[in-house]
Amino acid sequence: MSTPPNPLRRNESSRRAILEAALQLCAEDGYGRLTIEAIAAHAGVSKKTIYRWWPSKGAVILEAIDDMANLLADHVDTGNLAADLHTQLSAVIELLTPPNNSAITGLIAEALHDKDLANDLRERLIRPRITAFKERMRIAQASGQLAPDADLDVALDLIYGPIYHRLVFHLGMPDAEQLRTLIAHALRGIQPA
Amino acid sequence: MSTPPNPLRRNESSRRAILEAALQLCAEDGYGRLTIEAIAAHAGVSKKTIYRWWPSKGAVILEAIDDMANLLADHVDTGNLAADLHTQLSAVIELLTPPNNSAITGLIAEALHDKDLANDLRERLIRPRITAFKERMRIAQASGQLAPDADLDVALDLIYGPIYHRLVFHLGMPDAEQLRTLIAHALRGIQPA
Repeated sequence: MSTPPNPLRRNESSRRAILEAALQLCAEDGYGRLTIEAIAAHAGVSKKTIYRWWPSKGAVILEAIDDMANLLADHVDTGNLAADLHTQLSAVIELLTPPNNSAITGLIAEALHDKDLANDLRERLIRPRITAFKERMRIAQASGQLAPDADLDVALDLIYGPIYHRLVFHLGMPDAEQLRTLIAHALRGIQPA
Repeated sequence: MSTPPNPLRRNESSRRAILEAALQLCAEDGYGRLTIEAIAAHAGVSKKTIYRWWPSKGAVILEAIDDMANLLADHVDTGNLAADLHTQLSAVIELLTPPNNSAITGLIAEALHDKDLANDLRERLIRPRITAFKERMRIAQASGQLAPDADLDVALDLIYGPIYHRLVFHLGMPDAEQLRTLIAHALRGIQPA
């Protein structure tokens, strides 16, 4: 006797088609004009399928960004902390730079006036990345690349803060050399005197 | 022979009434629901008066925040750089904390998908404040509180970055003690080794 298919169970190829459609439409038309209808049409699925898996367009975009960030912006460990942070932050900056940025900046803007989405953004997208950052920093501490009593909460603020200050005030993302300078200064700041 | 009144010339009491109405309505109903109609009704002026002076609701809110920031978040100079930055940043944090934050977070969100507003935000609200920050830092350099070759662009990124990283990801503003810690670490970071 075979088990009947569970209609709530996600089909991976539909899931990927939906997320890719959402990102592509967002890049073309902007987050504000994105609709579930358009995503459904573009991905070749029904609106009902999308609503079965996600409560809102914000939730679709959140998951699309999460997939993209998992793929592109993981922490690496070559044994050189400054260089590894440069690699990871360069990927984050890439995601925040046109034409790749419309999904994430749209999500950030929407979350600024939608408490549930803000909560999802923090808990589902950001907290796991803060954990991964701190894991990389603890490896650096264990191997002597970073002072064992460096404050990792301050490190998070000093290393990632500049990018988002520049984002919200449209001051331009740091280039590779500026990023190197920022990381060097931030790491100096968190080494206890 | 008297000069005829210039209809484009702003009346200061109307101007203040409009800006106060905009901030109050924004706090009550949120930036998204704010309309020029409601501002006009609340301030006791015509819509035409508002449109004569400002092109959009974003422009009204920008000027209201500019006035508020000039009043509340100027740089001070008591001779103690870390303490003076704490004073100024505490005022900025106050403006970014509910219930005062709906105007500025609304403006930030809107500017993330409105290039003209983003340009105004940067040039009219932020650039003059960056200049004021650097002036305070140069005083600190001249009086020996800060290394003369400290990089003031990096200082801006490290000192203001954390607040906006926390804002966009809803991580909570630093309390007074956390702010003190952040400023101390950022200042250590920018002192050349």
